[in-house]
Amino acid sequence: MAGSKMQLELSRVVQGKSRLGVLKGLGRTGRHSLEVPGCLLYTRFGTVPHLTQDTLHTMSSLPSVSQVTLSNIAEHQEVLEEFKDGFRRFAGLHDTVLYCSLHDPAALCPTGYTTNKTVSVWGSGGRIELTVAKFMALQKTVQPDWYQSMADGETWQNNTSRKRVRKSVDRTLAHLDECLLLHQKSQELEGVEVFGVVEGGDILEERLRSARETAKRPVAGFCLDGLQSGSMDQTLRTQLITALTKELPEDKPRLLQGVGRPDEVLACVEAGVDLFESFFPFQVTERGCALCFSFDISPDPERAVLELNEENKAVGETQQNGDRNRDDQTQMTSFEIDLKDKRYQDDFRPLVEGCGCYCCKNHQRAYLHHLLVTNELLAGVLLMIHNTTHYYGFFSVLREALASDKLDLLKRRVLGDGGWQTGRKE
Amino acid sequence: MAGSKMQLELSRVVQGKSRLGVLKGLGRTGRHSLEVPGCLLYTRFGTVPHLTQDTLHTMSSLPSVSQVTLSNIAEHQEVLEEFKDGFRRFAGLHDTVLYCSLHDPAALCPTGYTTNKTVSVWGSGGRIELTVAKFMALQKTVQPDWYQSMADGETWQNNTSRKRVRKSVDRTLAHLDECLLLHQKSQELEGVEVFGVVEGGDILEERLRSARETAKRPVAGFCLDGLQSGSMDQTLRTQLITALTKELPEDKPRLLQGVGRPDEVLACVEAGVDLFESFFPFQVTERGCALCFSFDISPDPERAVLELNEENKAVGETQQNGDRNRDDQTQMTSFEIDLKDKRYQDDFRPLVEGCGCYCCKNHQRAYLHHLLVTNELLAGVLLMIHNTTHYYGFFSVLREALASDKLDLLKRRVLGDGGWQTGRKE
Repeated sequence: MAGSKMQLELSRVVQGKSRLGVLKGLGRTGRHSLEVPGCLLYTRFGTVPHLTQDTLHTMSSLPSVSQVTLSNIAEHQEVLEEFKDGFRRFAGLHDTVLYCSLHDPAALCPTGYTTNKTVSVWGSGGRIELTVAKFMALQKTVQPDWYQSMADGETWQNNTSRKRVRKSVDRTLAHLDECLLLHQKSQELEGVEVFGVVEGGDILEERLRSARETAKRPVAGFCLDGLQSGSMDQTLRTQLITALTKELPEDKPRLLQGVGRPDEVLACVEAGVDLFESFFPFQVTERGCALCFSFDISPDPERAVLELNEENKAVGETQQNGDRNRDDQTQMTSFEIDLKDKRYQDDFRPLVEGCGCYCCKNHQRAYLHHLLVTNELLAGVLLMIHNTTHYYGFFSVLREALASDKLDLLKRRVLGDGGWQTGRKE
Repeated sequence: MAGSKMQLELSRVVQGKSRLGVLKGLGRTGRHSLEVPGCLLYTRFGTVPHLTQDTLHTMSSLPSVSQVTLSNIAEHQEVLEEFKDGFRRFAGLHDTVLYCSLHDPAALCPTGYTTNKTVSVWGSGGRIELTVAKFMALQKTVQPDWYQSMADGETWQNNTSRKRVRKSVDRTLAHLDECLLLHQKSQELEGVEVFGVVEGGDILEERLRSARETAKRPVAGFCLDGLQSGSMDQTLRTQLITALTKELPEDKPRLLQGVGRPDEVLACVEAGVDLFESFFPFQVTERGCALCFSFDISPDPERAVLELNEENKAVGETQQNGDRNRDDQTQMTSFEIDLKDKRYQDDFRPLVEGCGCYCCKNHQRAYLHHLLVTNELLAGVLLMIHNTTHYYGFFSVLREALASDKLDLLKRRVLGDGGWQTGRKE
């Protein structure tokens, strides 16, 4: 594509699959870059929930790419058109690369509304039906640096028929071709990148066809859709991703949609995924929990880590099999502690010993517990600061582990040496 | 009282009533001060709703005194006792003077639960009955710098009988005597200040008796209770305050509870009030509104001010007589604009032209409108920043107006030259 500048420079590929590198040439000026494996900054309507831009920028390891979703934006098209200067300026965002996806990974999208020519997104005012023409008009208004092509993603349910899956792959390719046609004719979108979407449900053959066909188009990278948490077992997900990424060019990034749990992230990186959406720390925050899983791979792991794992083990034992129910993304996982639990009411330690975030440096678990049980509005702000910091810290260490051959050690740390938290050893 | 260091230095008294000065010697070290007329920093459980301490301290004109309320804290007494270091450290508060009041001015307190020996406060877990002994035990745990004595404040309803009002005054004086007795015996409370509470409902004679008797006790200042917004007409409130403050010593501060609207603040300052609680900007934030009233008294008022007043006039005309219903504190007032209104969906101006707050410098009304209608969590954070800044700015200018004989000009600005917003010219 004319003007396309996104470039993936891989510095390392471990066991032919796990990729370490840098995605360069991002943004209109091409000055931005993003390390992979990595994640995008999760936003709703351009904002990281609870946090101002100022608070956000006190945090380290922030992703340079912000994700906005059409489901949040579509109903405001008229106003954005009137505003003229694009969503980045409308939302008062500073210097960030803007990536526009179709759906919000943290919100449920009702199914049954997709037709041959349209997909639907759900905003606060209800359903909005998008044709490719309307979808592309929206992109011109939003003015992202990079967007996901329109796709029929309604095949993530377990019992989707082969016929329906085939139709989804066909439609998604047709949408992509139409998008690219309109894109190439549009002056406003010059230099903007398009990611093609790989569909195919849980049918290997269709996954391969979708990947192969999408790779033939002039796209900058690939979104892997329909593999989100809750839709399928991690073993099947890993098999599908391992197979389909073989059909994709080495030099273009792969963004996996809807997967955020640390154990799943690790398995998917090993299957060849480069990028993730970072909605997971937000979900943890909304249920009043704090991420506390250990990812310390330093040569002399501190005592604190052992203590932490001991504690997690205790939590894992008492929680009611939270993560066996794989259909409910809002259920607590074993990577977090539930601060509303009475055990924290007189726990005067920080959320995570040694964590450098604002919340851990200034507040203790007991205070957070009391903010939560009394419904104080600051609880969300403080938890979001910690959870986001912890999550991005995990991704930093993940890259470090890939660079220094310590992925196995990191997996043991994250999954817990006893494999207690999921029952699935890998 | 032994160790008492609070001192009110008045630099100006306008027309024998409006007082300008500085409250000095605050906090255990005595290093803090607070200008009067002024307000306390409203907090819930030690936090300014929505804002971290870091965000808070980016704002100018912050009050040096934080208000916490026993209704938020009482149910956590055991944990605080275990913690030992007082509420300030428990809540991770920085260098602030801590004032502890009985009730939360922004929360409704059910009536009918007061007895001769107890008052009740309502936390998230329900009602907690306090005797003076329990009340004082709480103060020892909270370790404030300054607290309000226990009081029977259940006389604010219009139809309270003379007998009930008399009982409330008697009980409140008895509580004060008991509090002072326990206070003087307590080492932990050495150097901590006590404010006596003036009750008396809407009966002038009882107001005078309550003020006179309270003034005989060794208190550092006075809380004026039972005069809150919604409980009585401003004219009657002004008359009562004007009369009762004559019974109070000139050199001790008067804190009016439950009054926060700018027009009411102005009238009460003219009646001799020094201090207010700042719950009003929080209430405005919670209803999705932005304070936008003008308080510019500079010699050459900018065009922006005129525009603003024009706009307010339009809002005042279309809103459905919001402020005639004086019983509902949650109703919108004429000092704010309702950003959820469709008229702001394409209004690309800041909330208040020329406002230096983070929100106004970075975002426009249209963006706030969209955050609100889509229920984004950042809306509350941004509105709280603006509304708090605007409100404290108003208090700064109020002091400036008292210093430079411009109170009448300020009143015209705030009330609107046409007197459109309340129908009551003063």
